[in-house]
Amino acid sequence: MLVVMKRGATQKEIDAVIARIEEFGIKPVPLPGAERVAIGTFGSTSRAAAEAVESLPGVAEVVPVSRPFKLASREVIAEDTVVSVDGVPVGGGAPLAVMAGPCSIESREQTLATARAVRAAGATVLRGGAFKPRSSPYAFRGLGLDGLEILAEARADTGLAICTEVLSPGDVEAVARVADCLQIGARNMQNYALLDAVGEQPKPVLLKRGMSATVEEFLLSAEYVLARGNRNVILCERGIRTFERYTRNTFDVNAIPLLKRLTHLPVIGDPSHGTGKWYLVAPIALAAVAAGADGLLIEVHPSPDHALSDGFQSLTFENFAAAMTQVAAVARAVGRPVADAARA
Amino acid sequence: MLVVMKRGATQKEIDAVIARIEEFGIKPVPLPGAERVAIGTFGSTSRAAAEAVESLPGVAEVVPVSRPFKLASREVIAEDTVVSVDGVPVGGGAPLAVMAGPCSIESREQTLATARAVRAAGATVLRGGAFKPRSSPYAFRGLGLDGLEILAEARADTGLAICTEVLSPGDVEAVARVADCLQIGARNMQNYALLDAVGEQPKPVLLKRGMSATVEEFLLSAEYVLARGNRNVILCERGIRTFERYTRNTFDVNAIPLLKRLTHLPVIGDPSHGTGKWYLVAPIALAAVAAGADGLLIEVHPSPDHALSDGFQSLTFENFAAAMTQVAAVARAVGRPVADAARA
Amino acid sequence: MLVVMKRGATQKEIDAVIARIEEFGIKPVPLPGAERVAIGTFGSTSRAAAEAVESLPGVAEVVPVSRPFKLASREVIAEDTVVSVDGVPVGGGAPLAVMAGPCSIESREQTLATARAVRAAGATVLRGGAFKPRSSPYAFRGLGLDGLEILAEARADTGLAICTEVLSPGDVEAVARVADCLQIGARNMQNYALLDAVGEQPKPVLLKRGMSATVEEFLLSAEYVLARGNRNVILCERGIRTFERYTRNTFDVNAIPLLKRLTHLPVIGDPSHGTGKWYLVAPIALAAVAAGADGLLIEVHPSPDHALSDGFQSLTFENFAAAMTQVAAVARAVGRPVADAARA
Amino acid sequence: MLVVMKRGATQKEIDAVIARIEEFGIKPVPLPGAERVAIGTFGSTSRAAAEAVESLPGVAEVVPVSRPFKLASREVIAEDTVVSVDGVPVGGGAPLAVMAGPCSIESREQTLATARAVRAAGATVLRGGAFKPRSSPYAFRGLGLDGLEILAEARADTGLAICTEVLSPGDVEAVARVADCLQIGARNMQNYALLDAVGEQPKPVLLKRGMSATVEEFLLSAEYVLARGNRNVILCERGIRTFERYTRNTFDVNAIPLLKRLTHLPVIGDPSHGTGKWYLVAPIALAAVAAGADGLLIEVHPSPDHALSDGFQSLTFENFAAAMTQVAAVARAVGRPVADAARA
Repeated sequence: MLVVMKRGATQKEIDAVIARIEEFGIKPVPLPGAERVAIGTFGSTSRAAAEAVESLPGVAEVVPVSRPFKLASREVIAEDTVVSVDGVPVGGGAPLAVMAGPCSIESREQTLATARAVRAAGATVLRGGAFKPRSSPYAFRGLGLDGLEILAEARADTGLAICTEVLSPGDVEAVARVADCLQIGARNMQNYALLDAVGEQPKPVLLKRGMSATVEEFLLSAEYVLARGNRNVILCERGIRTFERYTRNTFDVNAIPLLKRLTHLPVIGDPSHGTGKWYLVAPIALAAVAAGADGLLIEVHPSPDHALSDGFQSLTFENFAAAMTQVAAVARAVGRPVADAARA
Repeated sequence: MLVVMKRGATQKEIDAVIARIEEFGIKPVPLPGAERVAIGTFGSTSRAAAEAVESLPGVAEVVPVSRPFKLASREVIAEDTVVSVDGVPVGGGAPLAVMAGPCSIESREQTLATARAVRAAGATVLRGGAFKPRSSPYAFRGLGLDGLEILAEARADTGLAICTEVLSPGDVEAVARVADCLQIGARNMQNYALLDAVGEQPKPVLLKRGMSATVEEFLLSAEYVLARGNRNVILCERGIRTFERYTRNTFDVNAIPLLKRLTHLPVIGDPSHGTGKWYLVAPIALAAVAAGADGLLIEVHPSPDHALSDGFQSLTFENFAAAMTQVAAVARAVGRPVADAARA
Repeated sequence: MLVVMKRGATQKEIDAVIARIEEFGIKPVPLPGAERVAIGTFGSTSRAAAEAVESLPGVAEVVPVSRPFKLASREVIAEDTVVSVDGVPVGGGAPLAVMAGPCSIESREQTLATARAVRAAGATVLRGGAFKPRSSPYAFRGLGLDGLEILAEARADTGLAICTEVLSPGDVEAVARVADCLQIGARNMQNYALLDAVGEQPKPVLLKRGMSATVEEFLLSAEYVLARGNRNVILCERGIRTFERYTRNTFDVNAIPLLKRLTHLPVIGDPSHGTGKWYLVAPIALAAVAAGADGLLIEVHPSPDHALSDGFQSLTFENFAAAMTQVAAVARAVGRPVADAARA
Repeated sequence: MLVVMKRGATQKEIDAVIARIEEFGIKPVPLPGAERVAIGTFGSTSRAAAEAVESLPGVAEVVPVSRPFKLASREVIAEDTVVSVDGVPVGGGAPLAVMAGPCSIESREQTLATARAVRAAGATVLRGGAFKPRSSPYAFRGLGLDGLEILAEARADTGLAICTEVLSPGDVEAVARVADCLQIGARNMQNYALLDAVGEQPKPVLLKRGMSATVEEFLLSAEYVLARGNRNVILCERGIRTFERYTRNTFDVNAIPLLKRLTHLPVIGDPSHGTGKWYLVAPIALAAVAAGADGLLIEVHPSPDHALSDGFQSLTFENFAAAMTQVAAVARAVGRPVADAARA
């Protein structure tokens, strides 16, 4: 870390900082500047040491140097992690993985029809919500366990792998029994009890970025899962909250190549939540692929204007198929073909 | 709701929207304008209807009219709710309630010393964390159940009421057995399983605003607790995430009078998290009181530079006592005296 | 507009709002709902009317319906505008236009070398700053008129069109005498005296989005130029300010297809400012093209680590040439070839 | 500055950074850590050096240490600056200075009536806009020079000092001939040609914070004025842009004590723009005073629902007088009485 002293800091204040740093077993190195003194350190430091020093008299600010995430860092693990979702590889040199399906599992018919349509268009994973987080307590909160059974039937029918959200540590076991991949939603990105719980079971985890999470916080949440022993984490950029009002969220396309540089974990893009407008989904899907995404997550519904949630950002079957044709062209242009639709 | 059609929308598109609205049992009213047609509705509508219509051809946007929160709304319940935290009244005409204590319960000595100091300075509730949410899995995560025992001892020693955070639905029962008030932290503001759980028990809930939550979302999260039957919810503004980098968060002082207008629930301010800098805590505490807050939440530590978390935003005993003197003066100026230190 | 009354608004309050609306010559239409009354209007309204009504007793909120921009709107002008920058077409069906060059014109040698290199790699417009807006008054503020002469020489040498920033109404004439396209920088997007000035001369205007401007405000600033008679406006997305700290700005890729939908004006992307990191420039350039951009603006410098400004986000000649190869592949994949390097 | 190398940086890369730093005449100090090497520097560094190093191979990030503002810094000038606005002192130990008036000068009658009303209630400066920046080119843009004459008449009538906005360098002379204080609006905070122009004349400058400006950028814009020789700068916090939608802006109350700590310049608060809702103006005015503001800027209009701009955030005469009574009480509580209404 680097401790920056105030311009008028006294020698006594500087000495007190040096002494406090030494209490943590760290070696301080004074660096007098033209305007003020800074104090660098040799060797490993801790956040605790930084916080301790920050409130001492004469200290202007403390700048941490080490990255706080370890197992998620490409500096620690250089090689790309390839996560297998029931045989569908995601990340590294694998083909572009497309996960698609309805926001909510509403019925057997809706789910099966959607599963067949997205498979035909090239998706390899069916994503649909059985347990739904909703801003209002009065909104539809999903079919729960019945929804999981419908997903299992759709998998048996189409061969697609299944990805679905889990909301509470108490549900992890039940969801993991059915799902091939457990989604942690944006609102739960810092629900640490839940991260611990999915970290202690072996199914892959699709971790969505919180709507105001920095890239560093996103990687620290992945670190929670990795630290519990589950190394199969897929990161998902899904838009951040900004001042812009035309769109529901601002898809942070910068985060895709940035994450690919900072971490070895696979990174996918969700243009449905990232825009909140069905007519922006296809162009932003193409942008995500062009920027280097390892896959996509797209909401598809047989009749978006009858959907029980998120209809305004879902694609029809026709629009999804058309988007997939464009996605395949851009994916080839950046040297990453789309996965083959039929896994068998 | 108001459905705004695109400028060039065809009559056929307008008719389709009208028909779809009628499917929901709602009466549509076409409103032709100079540039485009809008369609109003009579009677109650639903979010589902709004979402259904939003994706129809020719629709530019859908504007909801009814507020989505009900039990939290001052339009539904006009009179101020006064929440009793083990006998300490918060809200309505009650004196300003000051909750103070260490970010983390670190030891018996630290906690008892802090409890006595904050009581002497005028606080009536001891706030301290036994279960700590931390961005990094490698940071100190609290003493857990041992921390609760220390809090109980501090209550017995000082007569202060106890408020502490709960992180997981599975812990609610254990925490509620000891605490007089359960805190839901900012990261868990949309952890709905947890909101349901605290809504189903009777102890008061201190709900902190999520760091990127709108005021509407904040009230909807309160609505979750209220809808489960627990009407004892205290709202806490604790700063939002913005682009500013000098401060840890931006204390949204606007939210205080705005919330007092929109809801009957008590509203308190947390200048410690709201600034992230100990030297800004006192002036922002005064600002919160001047703006109409029903109480304050302030981090205090016997030796901030030795704290295991958040030392840089904690006040020393001396600074807290000095701040309380100023707080009392401003509270009197706005006609709301500080609660008496000794409850007995 | 739609005027939403408070839940408990009295009939007298409702009548007063209706009377006030009528004062503006607008016809009000009461819409009683389950919870509250709303009042729609027939015919054209004005912002003045909306603001007048908003402060009346009993009014909860006023929702505007008409879009505030006209000449920039695709609803008014359906067909794509193609702007000619000294013969280089931008927008509509034209090939992808790549503008490149150094952040600042530092010397004749640096500028000529860069012009030749970017032309060889496929750029058709040279962009470089002679007048530089800088956050600090002590930073290098550009060569001024001498810089313009160097740009003119580079044009004569390479045949590239010239685009450069103008900072003040008083400089518009001098800059327009040399430049083929006048850039309005992000900090000046709402400098209306400057917008008026460039609107009153005929050279094309490259308008950059302000760093916290909404898409609507961006289009309103374009409207200023259009309303003064200059219809040659190119819009440039260059990243917005968010909470993320790894990147300098967050490139709002959503804005590209959104703008293409809302306006007929050409839209280009600036991945250099949009990321602030040279290693993110190429992937974000690809993303912008995939999302439908009509062109790109990329900072290139012979020796980024010796640049007088923005070196950390500039590409070397080699990196720019490599990026252009990838850009051409993605552009072909979305059916929009890159413009031919040599205009002659 | 501190240069942080990547974890796997080679010795050759480290040596190149050291050599590049030495090219700037700065002494580098290598600081090997447990994970990576950092390089500190002795003596003064420059932004140019920091940018040069940031793009070298092996560099992870560069952390600046010196503050970029000088004349505005309290580290350079410790004592409070007291700005005299035609005899009204602002800052330091001076009484709270209240500036009030209509958003726009609309007519002689409106202006004189407002001037008399705000004077009677305790304001000492009349603030009104003759030149108005408006998002839309079709909105009312002010009376211009005629508005200045009306302001001069109001000063002669009431004895109030006059503050009004200037939008363009070409207007500075004309506005300065009449006004006692020149306002630079939020949209022009980084209009450097304008900052230079007001810096070269002697009338005090009221500089409003840009809506997405950091505190550091705000101080750098003040530095522009100071560096040109005008030391009479008053800073004004007027709300920043965030994701919150109930309010027009988020009043950054943190900025008030933070600015008082970082700079010697006076700081005032504008609760009218800072909230955008007339019913939040009084509580936020109180909050600003409690947090340590040296003054207030409040919009007042004889009939807000007939105002040509910003009616929804203006106070009536009655509401302003009532707010001033509360302001006086809070000001006394924090030891800073309100200025006496009648200057004579």
